[in-house]
Amino acid sequence: MQQTFRLVIDCPDQIGLVAAVSQFLAQQNATIVEANHHTDQQTGRFFMRHEIKAESMSMSLQNIKQSFEPIAEKFQMHWKIADSHKKQKVVMLASHESHCLMDILHRWHSGELHCDIPCIISNHPQMKQFADWHNIPFHWVDFKDQPKEKAFAEVEKLIEAYQADLTVLARFMQIIPDHLCKKLAGKAINIHHSFLPSFAGAKPYLQAYNRGVKLIGATCHYVTSDLDEGPIIEQEVMRISHSDTSADMVRKGKNCEKTALANGVRYHLEDRVIIHKSKTVVFA
Amino acid sequence: MQQTFRLVIDCPDQIGLVAAVSQFLAQQNATIVEANHHTDQQTGRFFMRHEIKAESMSMSLQNIKQSFEPIAEKFQMHWKIADSHKKQKVVMLASHESHCLMDILHRWHSGELHCDIPCIISNHPQMKQFADWHNIPFHWVDFKDQPKEKAFAEVEKLIEAYQADLTVLARFMQIIPDHLCKKLAGKAINIHHSFLPSFAGAKPYLQAYNRGVKLIGATCHYVTSDLDEGPIIEQEVMRISHSDTSADMVRKGKNCEKTALANGVRYHLEDRVIIHKSKTVVFA
Amino acid sequence: MQQTFRLVIDCPDQIGLVAAVSQFLAQQNATIVEANHHTDQQTGRFFMRHEIKAESMSMSLQNIKQSFEPIAEKFQMHWKIADSHKKQKVVMLASHESHCLMDILHRWHSGELHCDIPCIISNHPQMKQFADWHNIPFHWVDFKDQPKEKAFAEVEKLIEAYQADLTVLARFMQIIPDHLCKKLAGKAINIHHSFLPSFAGAKPYLQAYNRGVKLIGATCHYVTSDLDEGPIIEQEVMRISHSDTSADMVRKGKNCEKTALANGVRYHLEDRVIIHKSKTVVFA
Amino acid sequence: MQQTFRLVIDCPDQIGLVAAVSQFLAQQNATIVEANHHTDQQTGRFFMRHEIKAESMSMSLQNIKQSFEPIAEKFQMHWKIADSHKKQKVVMLASHESHCLMDILHRWHSGELHCDIPCIISNHPQMKQFADWHNIPFHWVDFKDQPKEKAFAEVEKLIEAYQADLTVLARFMQIIPDHLCKKLAGKAINIHHSFLPSFAGAKPYLQAYNRGVKLIGATCHYVTSDLDEGPIIEQEVMRISHSDTSADMVRKGKNCEKTALANGVRYHLEDRVIIHKSKTVVFA
Repeated sequence: MQQTFRLVIDCPDQIGLVAAVSQFLAQQNATIVEANHHTDQQTGRFFMRHEIKAESMSMSLQNIKQSFEPIAEKFQMHWKIADSHKKQKVVMLASHESHCLMDILHRWHSGELHCDIPCIISNHPQMKQFADWHNIPFHWVDFKDQPKEKAFAEVEKLIEAYQADLTVLARFMQIIPDHLCKKLAGKAINIHHSFLPSFAGAKPYLQAYNRGVKLIGATCHYVTSDLDEGPIIEQEVMRISHSDTSADMVRKGKNCEKTALANGVRYHLEDRVIIHKSKTVVFA
Repeated sequence: MQQTFRLVIDCPDQIGLVAAVSQFLAQQNATIVEANHHTDQQTGRFFMRHEIKAESMSMSLQNIKQSFEPIAEKFQMHWKIADSHKKQKVVMLASHESHCLMDILHRWHSGELHCDIPCIISNHPQMKQFADWHNIPFHWVDFKDQPKEKAFAEVEKLIEAYQADLTVLARFMQIIPDHLCKKLAGKAINIHHSFLPSFAGAKPYLQAYNRGVKLIGATCHYVTSDLDEGPIIEQEVMRISHSDTSADMVRKGKNCEKTALANGVRYHLEDRVIIHKSKTVVFA
Repeated sequence: MQQTFRLVIDCPDQIGLVAAVSQFLAQQNATIVEANHHTDQQTGRFFMRHEIKAESMSMSLQNIKQSFEPIAEKFQMHWKIADSHKKQKVVMLASHESHCLMDILHRWHSGELHCDIPCIISNHPQMKQFADWHNIPFHWVDFKDQPKEKAFAEVEKLIEAYQADLTVLARFMQIIPDHLCKKLAGKAINIHHSFLPSFAGAKPYLQAYNRGVKLIGATCHYVTSDLDEGPIIEQEVMRISHSDTSADMVRKGKNCEKTALANGVRYHLEDRVIIHKSKTVVFA
Repeated sequence: MQQTFRLVIDCPDQIGLVAAVSQFLAQQNATIVEANHHTDQQTGRFFMRHEIKAESMSMSLQNIKQSFEPIAEKFQMHWKIADSHKKQKVVMLASHESHCLMDILHRWHSGELHCDIPCIISNHPQMKQFADWHNIPFHWVDFKDQPKEKAFAEVEKLIEAYQADLTVLARFMQIIPDHLCKKLAGKAINIHHSFLPSFAGAKPYLQAYNRGVKLIGATCHYVTSDLDEGPIIEQEVMRISHSDTSADMVRKGKNCEKTALANGVRYHLEDRVIIHKSKTVVFA
């Protein structure tokens, strides 16, 4: 994979903003691989992402950052510049349903997801087999015979110890406590097995079956204190009919879950997602 | 269109049921064009639809009905046999948004929807232009300068006068009063411009925009007293992104609305839908 | 609809290019509603579209054009700036299948498609009814009792007389002669009722039926001398099964055709499509 | 999984056929879980699949077969009755692309695909890691340093030795010789990484990129001597745009390939597919 720098900006929309950024990039001789802009007409917020060939720039990343600082300040930017070669650390949380975990692991193993996976945490010991095979440290956390508080304290400690840049809840099926949600804000992604906001909460496929909908889906979103209310990154749906039992839906829905989660995680890792209030801008 | 008889049955699932029906049909020398079965595993209810070449049967429809009665009784069937050549009368209700109305009218005009449209009722006088061109009687009902009760009394009278077999709410945008919902139970179809149960109620596209979903949709369902809670017949979705305003969603969503409504109405007219409690069996 | 100017550019990718354009726009005080960039990595060609609030610019369109000319020349740009309030003239060609024609007319009538439709041309006189109702001049051209050459000479004359900016073949079903294809290059859009390149040529639904595919589709593309080989603007598909006859496919496929054509035409009218060799860049 | 018997029939359409079959089932006291019928109007061929609760039938499978034989003969049926508890042996062929192999293995491992996988055969030794982890015998066949004929002779021997009921080419990327195609007719499934019949042959994603299509797909089909021409079981598509390189398409298309192959294999294993000339009837 060729090395790129990703300059991601959001700030109040202003005249001269794009000119200043693109002039800066031209001065650095930057070859732009991909550029995306978006203005939210409602709030007047501006969003921008540039993916730049690293080799085209003469300066080091550190120098670029320093040189860009005055522009950022002038336009009150919230910004970052990320190096595609610096792998993010992604801690996986999983329960007994293994399809999302396995799917992410295979995409990582085959080079599709460019990240490190420093550890897998699960409340089900049998997930260890997947971790072992991939040579990833595994941590079983007991959610049954100790208070949830204690269990989550363990999880939190592990996330810290492994210095996770991102925590992925691959069908973890436990409600994250409020303070941890806040701590991981914008750095924890969940997959919910319904087309949110329909069928939030428990047993979404059973809810969908009982309601008689003709399409089911899955939603990949950032974790927030409000359960199943976090900013949505990606959604997938598929058609069903009266002949599908809720068990059939579970089976069929897994394809949606895997795809939505994998896309959501990839967008995040490639710095394609900007959270704006309760929503996202995704330069997919 | 070749003439067919449609035998539609639902009853408790029982051994010998299909054998009795198919033996009856074989004795009548019936050529079956299409056959569908479904057993609801949860409730043990059985559903069946046969489409039979009319010319293959020697008996008249009346005689078939009489001959079938004993079988129906034996198996406690809820049943009907419909003649594809007998057109149902479909009364259209429309408001100022004309896309669904026009779409249905063109499908009817071009022979795709096999029905009669005896009249169009609207609270907006400008819908008359569409009615006139199709030579369909038009009735404007004033929903502004008279109490809604009175307006709905007019609507009800018209539906009765035209002996509607089906009433279609093509974005009618008025909440049908309880007693009329009950009267039209199973005989009135609505299109809601969201992927229900998400965004029930008013301004679903604005709700969808505010929630930041990545897919929008439309739902075709039977009208019931519980607003937007009726049995779902058909749903459609399409992908959107952060760059779509709620106005864009309105424009894009119309394609979903048209397709979902047209399919739902066609399924109903072809006797492909059986309502079972709060859900539908659709032999599409 | 708010007035915007659309600046559409393609040129060899060069350092300083975006900076120059955005600086120019900043100097004009331009408020940018939407901006899109694309670099074709294979050919090194750069594509850019800006949609600018007209009221934000102090200069007239004529003056903007003059001021921009030096930049355009420096970077060897192929470019235009279009006024959203200047309606393009869209001549419709139609045959006996009316669904695409009606769909476009209704979108135009309801304000979704922002253009003028100066005339409808058809080889079937009964299309006149649709034209009359919309108060659009109608021209029947005889393709049966005169040589095709003569018929097409009539069509060509009409297109010229009405000064068409765009010609839309809404299921016209006649093969356009080579010289007319060339004359209308980039200014004529066709809808083919298959998912090209599958099932090019005649009777695509029958071809699809015979091949046993599980999805059918439609393709909206620019007209070129190579039949069904023009640059693709938009495609739609839908799922089918063994139970669909080729007649069912015709009915079902119409939804794909309508949507793909309407989107393709809208993209073109909004200056969102740039043809690049045998392909398109579509800033949808 | 509850045990079921699957009675699958195809024969010339005849009056009395369904009556005879359903009477037979009623006499055996069979509880029917799922029933599907289809008549091909073009050829007059009839297709039927019943899934029956095993415990509801008093007879053994052997006795059922004998008792049904006279009916089958009378109506010239091509038929089988399969026991859901008897697992089919599925031999996997894979090359260096592992996503389809891994996907099938995980679905099998997690119980979604009900079959045995007696061995994995590959021309790439590194696939052994996946086989080992699943405790499945692995066979590397050299396709580089020996003539293909010899290599395929090895493959053929292995398929025989393991008594494969089904052979799955999970992106095997080798053209199966004619005699082996014939031998495995109806018992070998391939996944082609395009929406056939578009882009048959090599490098379909590059072909799709060069043609500028707006959707890509994958096709799961039975292997026949005519390359990429076998009866299609399942197809999947996804939307792409000008901004996707052919490398992006490869990445995106994998989701289609995995889903289409997994569905196709499952349909086959559940006896839901009947091959009819060059097409399939899939009671999905």
